[in-house]
Amino acid sequence: MGQKTAVNVKEAAALLERMDDILIVTHRSPDGDTLGSGFALWAGLLRLGRRVRVICPNEIPKMYDYLSGVHDELYKGDESVQFSHVVSVDTATPALMGRLREKYESVVDLSIDHHGSNSFYAKSTLVEPDFASCAEVVYEVLCRLGVDIDVYIASALYTGISTDTGCYKYQNTTANSHAVTSKLIEKGIDLAFLNRVLFDTRSRAELSLERAALDTLEFFYHDKIAMMTVSDDMMRLAGATEQDISGITPLPCSVEGVEAGITLRELPNGNVKGSVRSARVVDASKVAEQFGGGGHHGAAGFECSGDLLDIKTLAVRAVIAQLQGDERLREDE
Amino acid sequence: MGQKTAVNVKEAAALLERMDDILIVTHRSPDGDTLGSGFALWAGLLRLGRRVRVICPNEIPKMYDYLSGVHDELYKGDESVQFSHVVSVDTATPALMGRLREKYESVVDLSIDHHGSNSFYAKSTLVEPDFASCAEVVYEVLCRLGVDIDVYIASALYTGISTDTGCYKYQNTTANSHAVTSKLIEKGIDLAFLNRVLFDTRSRAELSLERAALDTLEFFYHDKIAMMTVSDDMMRLAGATEQDISGITPLPCSVEGVEAGITLRELPNGNVKGSVRSARVVDASKVAEQFGGGGHHGAAGFECSGDLLDIKTLAVRAVIAQLQGDERLREDE
Repeated sequence: MGQKTAVNVKEAAALLERMDDILIVTHRSPDGDTLGSGFALWAGLLRLGRRVRVICPNEIPKMYDYLSGVHDELYKGDESVQFSHVVSVDTATPALMGRLREKYESVVDLSIDHHGSNSFYAKSTLVEPDFASCAEVVYEVLCRLGVDIDVYIASALYTGISTDTGCYKYQNTTANSHAVTSKLIEKGIDLAFLNRVLFDTRSRAELSLERAALDTLEFFYHDKIAMMTVSDDMMRLAGATEQDISGITPLPCSVEGVEAGITLRELPNGNVKGSVRSARVVDASKVAEQFGGGGHHGAAGFECSGDLLDIKTLAVRAVIAQLQGDERLREDE
Repeated sequence: MGQKTAVNVKEAAALLERMDDILIVTHRSPDGDTLGSGFALWAGLLRLGRRVRVICPNEIPKMYDYLSGVHDELYKGDESVQFSHVVSVDTATPALMGRLREKYESVVDLSIDHHGSNSFYAKSTLVEPDFASCAEVVYEVLCRLGVDIDVYIASALYTGISTDTGCYKYQNTTANSHAVTSKLIEKGIDLAFLNRVLFDTRSRAELSLERAALDTLEFFYHDKIAMMTVSDDMMRLAGATEQDISGITPLPCSVEGVEAGITLRELPNGNVKGSVRSARVVDASKVAEQFGGGGHHGAAGFECSGDLLDIKTLAVRAVIAQLQGDERLREDE
């Protein structure tokens, strides 16, 4: 294994200028940022005359057809085709390559990423931890390479930035996210289409699940805590998937006046999966840590064994302790 | 009455430079854009040493306390206080001044707006119909006046831009909306706080109403039409207001595969209020026009008398006719 080097945008562009026969690897369970980054880089290098293809460890969700549909021979890992160079996008660790890990983890020439947690597994790593999305990093690289940002590339980059920032609503959104988006819109992307596909489409299963889950909504501690409980039966009856439940977990914390929203889910294996969201005062990660989980101040999660009612009680008490601590602090002021 | 003149940003700024004792008027049922524009302009003129106050035809919703709270003497219309100049923001017609119309409609010196429908009721009108929000127009004016955009002003302008674009999701969002937002974020606004207040807070009444309304969801024509029916009883049981119902009207059209989403509501006076949303193919305004209403391709509305079931049947048939027309067009291609 050679040396692992951190590179800047200029150096990353210089590396790409010397590459041909390039395979671009996205992370597993592909989201808008890894796909948007991958397809934007693919199209950019293609415009520069390179032989380049994209590989994804899993099936690409149908909603991203407008990106993957124009790639006429998405690489599936055919052994007869060889690549001289491998570039990964939005992939912080080799584990995130899923089924492709074994084959590629030690041969990645360049990792383009925005996760501060990047493990520097590639020969060269360009990581911009202050950027909300990997697509913003790819944008810088493409500009440095002199690529003309056409409508396709702009749509791909918009997909990455807008999905990783929750359509500019999440805390990670920066001035740069908006500045780059402004430039992408000037390229004539179909905002109405993209926003409908990316943000305004819900499955019927998600709606059925939401209807059932809303019936379980309970409030505690002067309505500052909201709790929703999703049973395995509810999931099966609604025909809901993991993606469907992630669509409804923000609900409890979205209620007016609520400081902490908790969603508990019974898993088929008997474990309980918890999602904790905080409005402001409560540190969600501290609540999740009590159950062996973790996360950020605003959002955290855990999975543990135990009786659902016990976990509910413990979680509510953990939040109350924090709220009372905050009230004492304010009284002292 | 003197002459009514259209002015550009430079001319509007020149007019403001010559004004003192200024009253800023917002439109009735105040939203984020009229309040954000009004308070940003107020603070900007205050920083320039002017005597200036804001008046709003209605109570300002509590969620905007972070804007109105620092204005220590919000003008209520006290006859003993006189102003030399009146400036309206985001107010396309005198009717939108509500209770203030009679007093101010003929004495507005400058109307700053972004509605192409502005009736030029003011002595001078600055209207930028290509801008998604009035706040973007106010931003240009403040820059031209040489006002230092501080955190308060930036927060007010962000409130206007982000609410009028549905947090950058609506079709009216432009490159300029994002470019200005990028500059506002650089001023250090508290994005997490603002986005939670503006976009992630739902009333318990809205959630109750949503739960009841989801039970009425019906699908027609190969699931391409979704219809939701809200009875007056449902409204009363949920304790829901007009704002609560507007929070749930996008639901039917958000379902995967749906081309047109319709929400019908029984009004206390026996009339039926309809909201039509379109994904792509259907022209929502054409559907609404059948019931004497109107709107845009993507969203339209109507209010009419008649039996709810009859209206439902007519509305579904109107959409089917459009969908079949579209299918025939495609077959011909």
